This record gives sequence, C-alpha cells and structure tokens, in this order.
Amino acid sequence: MKITAEAAKKYPALEELVSLYSSRQQKSVFWEDKVHAELEIVDALPNKLIWEFKVEEKHCNQLGNIHGGCVATIIDICSSFAILTYEGKGGWSLIGVSTDLAVSYMSGIAAGQTCRLECDVQRVGKTLANIYTTVYNEDGKLCYSGSHTKYCIDSRL
Amino acid sequence: MKITAEAAKKYPALEELVSLYSSRQQKSVFWEDKVHAELEIVDALPNKLIWEFKVEEKHCNQLGNIHGGCVATIIDICSSFAILTYEGKGGWSLIGVSTDLAVSYMSGIAAGQTCRLECDVQRVGKTLANIYTTVYNEDGKLCYSGSHTKYCIDSRL
Amino acid sequence: MKITAEAAKKYPALEELVSLYSSRQQKSVFWEDKVHAELEIVDALPNKLIWEFKVEEKHCNQLGNIHGGCVATIIDICSSFAILTYEGKGGWSLIGVSTDLAVSYMSGIAAGQTCRLECDVQRVGKTLANIYTTVYNEDGKLCYSGSHTKYCIDSRL
Amino acid sequence: MKITAEAAKKYPALEELVSLYSSRQQKSVFWEDKVHAELEIVDALPNKLIWEFKVEEKHCNQLGNIHGGCVATIIDICSSFAILTYEGKGGWSLIGVSTDLAVSYMSGIAAGQTCRLECDVQRVGKTLANIYTTVYNEDGKLCYSGSHTKYCIDSRL
Repeated sequence: MKITAEAAKKYPALEELVSLYSSRQQKSVFWEDKVHAELEIVDALPNKLIWEFKVEEKHCNQLGNIHGGCVATIIDICSSFAILTYEGKGGWSLIGVSTDLAVSYMSGIAAGQTCRLECDVQRVGKTLANIYTTVYNEDGKLCYSGSHTKYCIDSRL
Repeated sequence: MKITAEAAKKYPALEELVSLYSSRQQKSVFWEDKVHAELEIVDALPNKLIWEFKVEEKHCNQLGNIHGGCVATIIDICSSFAILTYEGKGGWSLIGVSTDLAVSYMSGIAAGQTCRLECDVQRVGKTLANIYTTVYNEDGKLCYSGSHTKYCIDSRL
Repeated sequence: MKITAEAAKKYPALEELVSLYSSRQQKSVFWEDKVHAELEIVDALPNKLIWEFKVEEKHCNQLGNIHGGCVATIIDICSSFAILTYEGKGGWSLIGVSTDLAVSYMSGIAAGQTCRLECDVQRVGKTLANIYTTVYNEDGKLCYSGSHTKYCIDSRL
Repeated sequence: MKITAEAAKKYPALEELVSLYSSRQQKSVFWEDKVHAELEIVDALPNKLIWEFKVEEKHCNQLGNIHGGCVATIIDICSSFAILTYEGKGGWSLIGVSTDLAVSYMSGIAAGQTCRLECDVQRVGKTLANIYTTVYNEDGKLCYSGSHTKYCIDSRL
C-alpha cells in the first residue's frame, strides 16, 4: 500500500495506517494481503479519499473481471481509511468495524487496468459513520459503487 | 472445495461446478483460491444449499475475525452455487453475474472456527435471481447475513 | 392496527404500542395513517412477529401493485414492532430509529389481496438491532424482502 | 407535482410524466398522492435531476421527522423520474419497476423544512438502471441517501 507525499503530509494518521498495513505485508497472511500491494492513495481531501487499484489476475474471476468479493474487499478497506479524512467535530481515532456493506455491480473491470476509487465520507457520528464509494475504470466509466456503514470502537482503546 | 456424496448425487450440476473450482485450484491464482479449499457443501435441498467454512488466519483481519471482504466473498460464492438447487420452471444453466450484494455484519467469527452458511434461493426469474444467506458460528449464533441479486447470462452460452 | 388476543397476552408491550398507534388514528395525519388500519398482528413468537396486511387501491401504484414506497413503509413499521418480541439479555424499551432499510422487490402484490409479513429478529444489541422481513402473497409466494437496521434510543427516555 | 419551465423545456418527457401524476391527483387515491403535491423538479441536467420536497406533518413520524417509509417513497419516485434525463445510447421510454431500494438514514428532517433531492443516474442498461439519490436539509447537510435499481419494462409497451 502506498500514499503520495502530498496526501501523507496533509493526513499523518493516514500515512501511519498505510505504514502499518505495509509493514504487516512481509510477515503476515491476512486477508488484505491479496490487495494491498496494488492499492495507492493518490489524493486526500476533506471528507474525500481517492485511491488507485491495479487489477491483476489474482483479483479476478473466471470471466476475467474483478471478483465480486474482491470489489467488496477493496471498497471495505478504502472507505474505512477515508474516515481519517473527516473534518468536523468528533472524528474517530480508529476506523471502526463494519455493520453494513452494500455493493452494486454495474460493469466489469478486467485484469491489466488501473481503476480509481473515490470515497466520500458522508457522516461521522458518535457511533456510526457512512462512506459512499464509486469505482471507475480507465475510461472514467462508473463500474461499481458501495455503501459502507461502520461502528466506532474508539472506546476499546 | 468439497461436496458430500449425497449432495453430489442429488445435484450433479453442483458436483460439476465443485470439480471445476477444485481442478482450477492447482494451476491458477484466481480470487476464489483464498477460500475454496476451506469450503464444503454439506447439504443440498430444493432451493437451499448448506455449506461449512473453516476459518483460517488468512481469512481474518487484525482484530482476529473474518475480514468483511472475505465474508462478502464466501457469501458471493456460496449463494451463487445455490442457484443450481432451484426447483421450478426456468432454472439457469450458469450461475450468472452479480448485480447487488449487501452484507450485514452482526458479530465476528474468529480463526479456528468452522462456520455454517445457509443459502435460501428466494427467486430464480428469467433475468434475475435472489439468494439470501445467513452465516452462523459454531454455537449456532447468527453472525452475518447477505442479500445477493444475480443476473442471468445463459444467453452467452 | 389490530392484534390478536393471544399475541396481546403474550407480549403486553406490543399491545400497548398497537393501542398507541390506533388511538392516534382518529386525530392525526401521520405517515403511518395510510397503512395502519390495514395491519394486524396475527402471531407473536420469541424473536418473530407475523402480520397480515390488507392491500387496498390507496397502497398501489399505477400498475395496480403495492407501491415500492408502501412496501418500504410496512416493512419499516412491522419490523420495528418485532423488536419487542426479542427474548434475551438487553431488550429495548423503545423501538429505536432506522439507520438502514434495504428492500428487494421480487414480484408484485395487487389490491384486494391480504399479504403476510414475517419479521425475524436477528439481533438486538446494545446499540443496533437487525430485523429481516419476508412478505408473501395469498398463495404463499415470496414477493418482497427487507433488511432493517435500527439504532437504540432508550437513553432518550 | 411541479416542474420549472426551464426543466420542462429541456426534457419534454419529464413534463409529460409530471402532468400525468398531477392530473391523477384529483380523482385517485394512489400511494403517491401523499407526497406528490409537495414535490417539485427544480433542475434537470444530463443524468441528474434535482427536486425540492416540502415536508409536512403528514409525512412525519411521532418523533417529528420524515417517516422512514416516506423517505423511501420520495427517493423511489424522484430517482425513477431521473431515468428520463439519461443521455446516451438506449434510454428507456418507461421508468421501469423497482428491483432493489436501499436507504440510509443519517439525520432527521422535520416538518416545515424544504429538503433537496439530488438524483444521479449512474447507469441505464438494456435491462437494469441504477440511480443514486442524496437528500439534504435546508442547511445543506446530507441526511438520507438511497440506491435504487430498476428493471426495464419497455417491452410491455
């Protein structure tokens, strides 16, 4: 997982989390390992996080497109990180746990493409956060979208 | 991926698909490879397919529970196979492509447990199919649920 | 809104809420008024509430079936009441507020029919509750389903 | 239901549908009657339709905010009309029937306010269309969102 210098400078908490994920990469066999080397934060704005994802064969199904479960995985991860771009009262320290994730599949994206994910932080409340993600192929066509609801676990700190 | 002899006998199309997934296992690096060795069809009934999934560390997040993206992946796969248990007019030959997948995360399931997935085929229409899946931990507690809508691609045959 | 004597006896809190809704009926112009006279609780079991709904023309769209917004409305109301059938630690006193409602429309139900709603209480946690509802036509065919997530507001008491 | 002159000029099909809904208003008792007098199309752009909705007591629940079922109803109606702003190959003649509607409730909107709905047409395919709607209160705060999937019924013409 990578992050541009500019985004890292604006949101140090994002860079820390990227480092944590990247360091784990060498030794662990967690679920995220199948996607995080191909993920890069390319822009970070107030309440908005932009990622690129390089699609490889290992992310795909037998039809040659990203597997539905992989789409859900990257939307889960990318939208969770986006919580750290929240600007307003009561931002969270941790990125919480999922309560709901709903993905719509509109068009496939094949191996070899680099797709773009835009995560909009819609709300970060005391208990729940909502992030909406749209995923575009290289031609800028909207191919997938995802609504993610997360539950705050900062009290476990 | 495995299937009990009894289920295979009742639904030959299911056994064929299991064989296809299992043979691919050796040579390929598809997305399903991270879960399919741990999946087993334990019962197949009209409009209902029951699976077991052995949770390993590679399926989990840093909190030690199945990663949200992995939950989505197994619900996607298991509910798709369930289409082949449909009894009624107009069953599909292929298991289609996803249009929508919505997962609710109610409680975590940790590595080491064997969880149980029950997939209910709610409708198989000319164009769309709906399958509802519930995932239980070893104590029979409902931990995840998923609503999956699939689009028929039999015409591509 | 009505409730059978047996269900009222088993769950007094349900009967109270039904009375509250029914008394409001005369004087108010709330949203629920368009559906609650046609709703009846026909059975109440641990973690499960069964309703009947008499479909009239005023609930329908121009195609003659229940309007999608009406389906959402009755699933919202019926599944909320179901929280009061929860048996386990930490039941709620109030039925909370909605955070998410996802409805699938599989087949239409026309005016004149009496449909049946089955609400399964899947989880009632400290903060969130999940209720899954299936709606059947008079022939017992599954026509709609809904996943409802509610947020506890007992602390406002 | 109203439409600005400018929007009507740009999209005659929208104006026709608005007229149809408004003429029905006098004689009928359809579900839409509880909301359509308070709905106005204020802008129509390629793949985007903007509405205003005047919240009255009859749209609200006992807590004084728009009822969840009413939110679902207006998102259903407004996003369906938006299909007629689609620009691209293969636009639909009719606005189809719902297959899925998922609403997130982030914050309440009370009676007396005029809220704003923005409907983004994400895809209009041969069979399915996806429209994403965001609902804002008078201060521009995002309060509700909705993902709507519709199924084409033009072949019934």
